[in-house]
Amino acid sequence: MYIPTYNDVCAAHERIAPYIHRTPVLTSSYLNGLSGAELFFKCENFQKAGAFKVRGACNAVFGLSEADARRGVATHSSGNHALSLTYAAGRRGIKATVVMPETAPKAKMDAVCGYGGEVITCAPSTEARERTLEALVERTGAEFVHPYNDHRVIAGQGTCARELLDEAGELDAVVAPIGGGGMISGTCLTLASLAPTTKIFAAEPKNADDAFRSFKAGRIIEDDAPQTVADGLKVSLRERTFHFVSTYVSDILLVSEEEIVAAMRLVWQRMKIVIEPSSAVAVAAVLKNPGLFAGRRVGVILTGGNVDLDKLPWIARA
Amino acid sequence: MYIPTYNDVCAAHERIAPYIHRTPVLTSSYLNGLSGAELFFKCENFQKAGAFKVRGACNAVFGLSEADARRGVATHSSGNHALSLTYAAGRRGIKATVVMPETAPKAKMDAVCGYGGEVITCAPSTEARERTLEALVERTGAEFVHPYNDHRVIAGQGTCARELLDEAGELDAVVAPIGGGGMISGTCLTLASLAPTTKIFAAEPKNADDAFRSFKAGRIIEDDAPQTVADGLKVSLRERTFHFVSTYVSDILLVSEEEIVAAMRLVWQRMKIVIEPSSAVAVAAVLKNPGLFAGRRVGVILTGGNVDLDKLPWIARA
Repeated sequence: MYIPTYNDVCAAHERIAPYIHRTPVLTSSYLNGLSGAELFFKCENFQKAGAFKVRGACNAVFGLSEADARRGVATHSSGNHALSLTYAAGRRGIKATVVMPETAPKAKMDAVCGYGGEVITCAPSTEARERTLEALVERTGAEFVHPYNDHRVIAGQGTCARELLDEAGELDAVVAPIGGGGMISGTCLTLASLAPTTKIFAAEPKNADDAFRSFKAGRIIEDDAPQTVADGLKVSLRERTFHFVSTYVSDILLVSEEEIVAAMRLVWQRMKIVIEPSSAVAVAAVLKNPGLFAGRRVGVILTGGNVDLDKLPWIARA
Repeated sequence: MYIPTYNDVCAAHERIAPYIHRTPVLTSSYLNGLSGAELFFKCENFQKAGAFKVRGACNAVFGLSEADARRGVATHSSGNHALSLTYAAGRRGIKATVVMPETAPKAKMDAVCGYGGEVITCAPSTEARERTLEALVERTGAEFVHPYNDHRVIAGQGTCARELLDEAGELDAVVAPIGGGGMISGTCLTLASLAPTTKIFAAEPKNADDAFRSFKAGRIIEDDAPQTVADGLKVSLRERTFHFVSTYVSDILLVSEEEIVAAMRLVWQRMKIVIEPSSAVAVAAVLKNPGLFAGRRVGVILTGGNVDLDKLPWIARA
């Protein structure tokens, strides 16, 4: 198992720079007052394709040899990674194929197609998904890019913390949401090298606390179909991301569904930016733990802004 | 009637700089593609108190002599000007009193109180409002700051276009929404001096087209209680703002309610920022008029981001 190094982050940064936004770092005097901390929000909701995932996807796609690239890329995901990989493939002019369960929302399939990707549906089970993907790879020779358990993807995500430090200066802590652990792993990779005294906290929905339980148990525990509004955080750690989490993370902070929705609404209302529930998990963790963060300089990674504007979690619908 | 000059804009800018944000100018490759233009969005939705109005309010408040300031400031408004004047007064440590109709939403009254202002209610008529305000001014000696028909306010709003030009460089056109005309008047003031060949377009809801009709008729025509989702744009021009509109504006562009809501949703979805319906009026006007804007460098002033997140205009409620 190849574990990427900070050199891989630097190489990734140079490789992907033409295809990503250097997203802004915003501050909010209101949220500073509320948390007692000095907060620096890294706004990956403004990123290409609406989420940080495009960093890792671009690093994987643009790192391929010409011969490999010609055979295209493939993944399974019904979320931001699918969109990001399709975006990256489009920029390189190669094909992207995404395996999705036939039960995935049509809007998500349409979004991939809108970016020029192809969707192949399968039965809604892990086994069907893996079999469909394997058959696809065998048939086409496409390069499989896992959403997070991939050293190229982790190195790509590490470029986000590098920009954050560059903009905000020294930080006492960085907080990012955790699902499969790609963003946290990249953050660990960068901070361990650039700012080894900066503490790293992962934030997770209480309703999908598999990373928390894995962290405490010292081995990967998988969740069985967790239910949370933060739909980007339902997946489980894998060996590469567990390595980073267990080595570098100070703690994993849990937040309730109500806390996630309240933090999301608060950011929309006061900062006037659209963030998705997964991003709000990190904000909620900061607001919930003044003992950890008050009086400190804290980076908060807002991971994405892809929200169904017709189904906001605080509005009861007709 | 004192008509402010560009010197007043420069003086205002220096005066208010410590109390306002220098808001960012954002771009969107998606909206460029859709409009055919190169768009520069001046994001006053990120401004203090959530709207450009704080520029004019701060200029009025911080321009007062010590003796005048001690008697406080007063206005009638149930919208962004009320919040902004209260914010400005708070920063100077003086009292702000706002006259609102007793039918105004409680949320708006609470917002003013939350910023430290005092609300006085009156019957919901123009006559009651003016009588209440006059009595208040007579009793307390407070300085009345009109939401837009005030040379200090207009000079303050002119600082916005100055920052836009500074950031975006030469522009072929600037588009801003028009209600009472304060923002457009300040924009005219600045552009007439700094960029006299840049065309100025005002954008107005078809359902509240009093400025359009005034512009065509060459005299102020007032609307009788117009109904539009862009609630910041329901008021009518007054003599100072009519002067600027009739002298410098190239045209007033009308948009329907559906176009406003669609443009608002599009900006939220693609740019990941929260803008209020009034801001969306300018975006809708650009999208509707490719004949005017395609191939041009166009500044678009997003005037504010104060939205009731529980009542989004594209969501049918339970």
